[in-house]
Amino acid sequence: MNRNVVFTFFLFCFVTICRGSGTDIALDAKATLLHRIDSLNLLIYTCLLTLTVLTIWVFKHRRVSWLHETGLAVIYGLIVGAIIRYAGSTNHITHINVNPEPGTTYNLSVPPDMLRFHFPASLPITPGDSPIANKTYAYSFRGEIVNVEQNEIDLKATFDPEIFFNIILPPIIFHAGYCLKRKYFFRNLGAILTFAMVGTALSALVIGALMYGCVQLMPASLASSFTFLDTLYFGALISPTDPLTVLAIFSQLKVDVNLYAMIFGESVLNDAVALVLSGAIQNYETRYSHDGGFEISGFLGAIGDFIGIFSLSLLVGALMGCLTALISKFTHVRDWPLLESALFVLMSYAAFLIAEVCELTGVVAVLFCGICQAHYTYNNLSSDSRNRTKQLFELLNFLAENFIFTYIGVSMFTFPKHHFDPWFIIAGFITSMLGRAVNIYPLSFLLNLGRKPPIPVNFQHMLFFSGLRGAMSFALAIRNTVSEARQAMLTTTSMIVIATVVLQGGAATHALDYLRIPTGQGSNEESEALPYRDVRSDTPRGGGDAGGGQKARLARVWGALDSRLLKPLLTHARPPLTETLPAFMRPVARLLTTTHQYTQGDNTLRRTDSDSDLCIDDPQIPSSIDPQLSINIRNGYGHV
Amino acid sequence: MNRNVVFTFFLFCFVTICRGSGTDIALDAKATLLHRIDSLNLLIYTCLLTLTVLTIWVFKHRRVSWLHETGLAVIYGLIVGAIIRYAGSTNHITHINVNPEPGTTYNLSVPPDMLRFHFPASLPITPGDSPIANKTYAYSFRGEIVNVEQNEIDLKATFDPEIFFNIILPPIIFHAGYCLKRKYFFRNLGAILTFAMVGTALSALVIGALMYGCVQLMPASLASSFTFLDTLYFGALISPTDPLTVLAIFSQLKVDVNLYAMIFGESVLNDAVALVLSGAIQNYETRYSHDGGFEISGFLGAIGDFIGIFSLSLLVGALMGCLTALISKFTHVRDWPLLESALFVLMSYAAFLIAEVCELTGVVAVLFCGICQAHYTYNNLSSDSRNRTKQLFELLNFLAENFIFTYIGVSMFTFPKHHFDPWFIIAGFITSMLGRAVNIYPLSFLLNLGRKPPIPVNFQHMLFFSGLRGAMSFALAIRNTVSEARQAMLTTTSMIVIATVVLQGGAATHALDYLRIPTGQGSNEESEALPYRDVRSDTPRGGGDAGGGQKARLARVWGALDSRLLKPLLTHARPPLTETLPAFMRPVARLLTTTHQYTQGDNTLRRTDSDSDLCIDDPQIPSSIDPQLSINIRNGYGHV
Repeated sequence: MNRNVVFTFFLFCFVTICRGSGTDIALDAKATLLHRIDSLNLLIYTCLLTLTVLTIWVFKHRRVSWLHETGLAVIYGLIVGAIIRYAGSTNHITHINVNPEPGTTYNLSVPPDMLRFHFPASLPITPGDSPIANKTYAYSFRGEIVNVEQNEIDLKATFDPEIFFNIILPPIIFHAGYCLKRKYFFRNLGAILTFAMVGTALSALVIGALMYGCVQLMPASLASSFTFLDTLYFGALISPTDPLTVLAIFSQLKVDVNLYAMIFGESVLNDAVALVLSGAIQNYETRYSHDGGFEISGFLGAIGDFIGIFSLSLLVGALMGCLTALISKFTHVRDWPLLESALFVLMSYAAFLIAEVCELTGVVAVLFCGICQAHYTYNNLSSDSRNRTKQLFELLNFLAENFIFTYIGVSMFTFPKHHFDPWFIIAGFITSMLGRAVNIYPLSFLLNLGRKPPIPVNFQHMLFFSGLRGAMSFALAIRNTVSEARQAMLTTTSMIVIATVVLQGGAATHALDYLRIPTGQGSNEESEALPYRDVRSDTPRGGGDAGGGQKARLARVWGALDSRLLKPLLTHARPPLTETLPAFMRPVARLLTTTHQYTQGDNTLRRTDSDSDLCIDDPQIPSSIDPQLSINIRNGYGHV
Repeated sequence: MNRNVVFTFFLFCFVTICRGSGTDIALDAKATLLHRIDSLNLLIYTCLLTLTVLTIWVFKHRRVSWLHETGLAVIYGLIVGAIIRYAGSTNHITHINVNPEPGTTYNLSVPPDMLRFHFPASLPITPGDSPIANKTYAYSFRGEIVNVEQNEIDLKATFDPEIFFNIILPPIIFHAGYCLKRKYFFRNLGAILTFAMVGTALSALVIGALMYGCVQLMPASLASSFTFLDTLYFGALISPTDPLTVLAIFSQLKVDVNLYAMIFGESVLNDAVALVLSGAIQNYETRYSHDGGFEISGFLGAIGDFIGIFSLSLLVGALMGCLTALISKFTHVRDWPLLESALFVLMSYAAFLIAEVCELTGVVAVLFCGICQAHYTYNNLSSDSRNRTKQLFELLNFLAENFIFTYIGVSMFTFPKHHFDPWFIIAGFITSMLGRAVNIYPLSFLLNLGRKPPIPVNFQHMLFFSGLRGAMSFALAIRNTVSEARQAMLTTTSMIVIATVVLQGGAATHALDYLRIPTGQGSNEESEALPYRDVRSDTPRGGGDAGGGQKARLARVWGALDSRLLKPLLTHARPPLTETLPAFMRPVARLLTTTHQYTQGDNTLRRTDSDSDLCIDDPQIPSSIDPQLSINIRNGYGHV
């Protein structure tokens, strides 16, 4: 409506007043049009998200639990994508072929960054129009055109895939790291690491090999377009899980926290593993392989890539997290919560950027930065900053997550590089299921050999069932769509994501029932919430949770290091370093201990010394607030 | 350090293992390099902001008040900009000139969106290298090259100016709207509107005319490059004020709230006015003017543009704000604070996007959306969402504001299109000061003729003194730097911004002393905070503040409309519409009144019915919290 008013107004101005210089206005109008299309695209997604939020409110209000917001976002996305595809007008990109000017000297082996183009110069413009002045225009490099015939780019509701890795994924992954239920995470560390590291690699290998076999059985045209590296890449990108819906139902129904920790911890870490793994496979392809075949030296190089990039990214993230903890411990910046929150956000973002600048993986760095921030820095923050950072990242995570699922839906129809290949899609569905099974059952068997409370069979089934695919798989698939093989992978990945999120997510409650997994573990949840209230951390972390389940060996080693060195160094936790370090280190220890750490027993208002077992996933409650209000806050919207 | 490790590792892999296909790797390395440069640029700003935060903490800790964080951000920016300029290596853009392929048919009057370029094809590549396969690359349209000789673009710490209008300014402006101290804002509405609307236009005109005169007196080469429209544009862009530093000192020293409201209100609105005004001048240039001279019809058209775009943008923003209020009133989405906050953010962002899609001004829409959100929606939100939205935008505003000031500093040295012209700079400083004087003194005189408590002379001096220039001026100046005249304007604007923020900002405390403006108005501040605690809004707004100063006539009309129609319609405030609307409207009124509105007297815990006089600028305190904690929160970092 407004648009028409403005349009009429402009038309009126135009007709009555002016006839300016033609090209300038046309060019201006073109720039405006492009900006408007960009804004319109964003507006579509904003409206879709608004719609999702409102519908989800209705669902929550009416206690509908078979559809999570991500599932709804996908469905709305699909509907709107179909409408845009079949009803919208197209905005094609105009293009012409050019040659260098005669006599140009240029002696680099890469194409130039920019072309300068005289227009219209020698081009035959339709006669009758007023003559157009010659001008020089700049054109900047975009990329290689593989299929010259098929390069009509639509400006319809699509974005540069790199925004996922630089804008959408970082807050999601950081939030995941910042939210790890730490007590149970560290208690199940062995199982989580096994599933995430070994399991993901195994799953990628199995899926890659099976897909390669399937592809060989298919029509020859298809078989020839896939190399083993391609299918292995597919295996790597389809392996990470994203069980948002399942986890939301878990926390709603209060399912066993160990199972929750295993599923959540695995899904957080396998994103990172898959990202680095797929990067290593891609590097192998461009750097080490001459013909797409297998070479032992290249294989070792790719494994070196994987280990090097993963561990260095981890290091960058963890160091930035610890640096933030040190700053927040030794300065009194927490007297100004806004400054403190800004510092927290800036340092976390710096971890991402440093990793990217060093050609490492920013998303992995941000994950481990988030874990360190939650484990150390969070304890030093003022209560205002705790709420602020938690709420900020919760909101960012909510928006980013739903945006990506909406985009998966919309892009099914609008992304121009889809390639529907029924055989590949069917094979993809079957192998990705098999890959998940290979990830869970054999490894659970091996883990149970050494684990004190073994993983029960119904838990294993639930782990298998929680293999929903999500944001990371999609982002990896859409990153590279140059060949037909890659396009078929994108289509298959999109369909697997949509199917698992909507169908598996919707059936999660029934699966819990069917597998007879106990729900409503009020007592268990209670014992987790308890330390939050009464612990003043006078008991060292290592000995504090004897009452809970058995701890994994790995967790015990880590716990000792953590409670004796890292926590006293990076937070205000007791015992101070002066008590835990050997005698000859005392002078250094004294330097690194704050007076707060010696005297904190007196402080009753600020819970800066909160225990690492604090579950920051809980609805945050200021420590001295009346119980009635806290009940009201508790009724609010918990963690996704 | 990490970088070297990675580099060595890669080098090792390279040397020992592979020699892949040359161009692919070179191209890949180039893409990686560009991404790394982008990340590095962002990292520089992130580190600068971190440094600013830490230094400001030290300053606050040591009670240094002569330097605000924006001033510090500028200074750090200048230092780092100088280092990058004189120490950093350059990354020049390579370019070649191209012609269309023979036989190309193309008959549009605008240049094509994309060029396709075969490389290397006929280009003479240095012999001796291995032959490079021919490939086709895509190049996308960037813009006109005005000065063909001088188009070396550095990739050094500069960003596309449009990010200011689409990413940096919206949260700043929204926050300003969301934070208006509403009681005093509406009480001084007449003065604020006069200064912001009439004053800014007057100031732009005076500065434009004076600058044109000055330019004519200068050497001929300079005089010929400036048209009257150019200097008028300069007048428009240098007129908006941004007295962040002054306002921070005001709230620290508790200066008279009416003066605070006038300065803050004016600075918020004149940004919007200047933005639309400069847009209208630019439109005049491209649409209505044939030779840069004056035409009465074009002038009227430009005025029509100004009024049309401003009021339509206002309408879009206000409607979106009211729509959010309606949704939050009639649904129970506030039971899930995360959904509610997400809805709030999405709707506010939609206001920006809708305005941009309609070729209106998104920033203006977002401003009025923010005002409506604060005036209506805020009262419907759950207390969790109130904190969350307030803290979110406070943080975004803090980061965006300091980013832009850092960028002003850095770009002084790194932006390639600066043009230092001493005469123009001196003239700019003098005329911008005169323009501010013309804005304040004559209009204050006129206002005092009708105003009950007149604006005292020392308040007028303070208004004059608060004419710091800031983010909006800079963003407008850097938006268009095609001609030498525009480049001189950018340089002058940058210098005026830096000088006023650092020097005038630093001298603000002394100016308050010198002008004998009373500080420490504890009682006045108290009377403002009072309604926040005890009003349950049972008294209609129109009659509730007889104790304060006299209200402007405009404010009274608005107040009546607001309290009888808008507030009861959009919020849960009393009296309900059933009491304020005429009898024949009762059925509609009953439909639009919630049961909550009838029964709210019983509700003692939730202050959803809070008065419009609520100053959301105060540190937020949950209503039922113990006094000791609230004192602790109060000591936190208040509003900037």
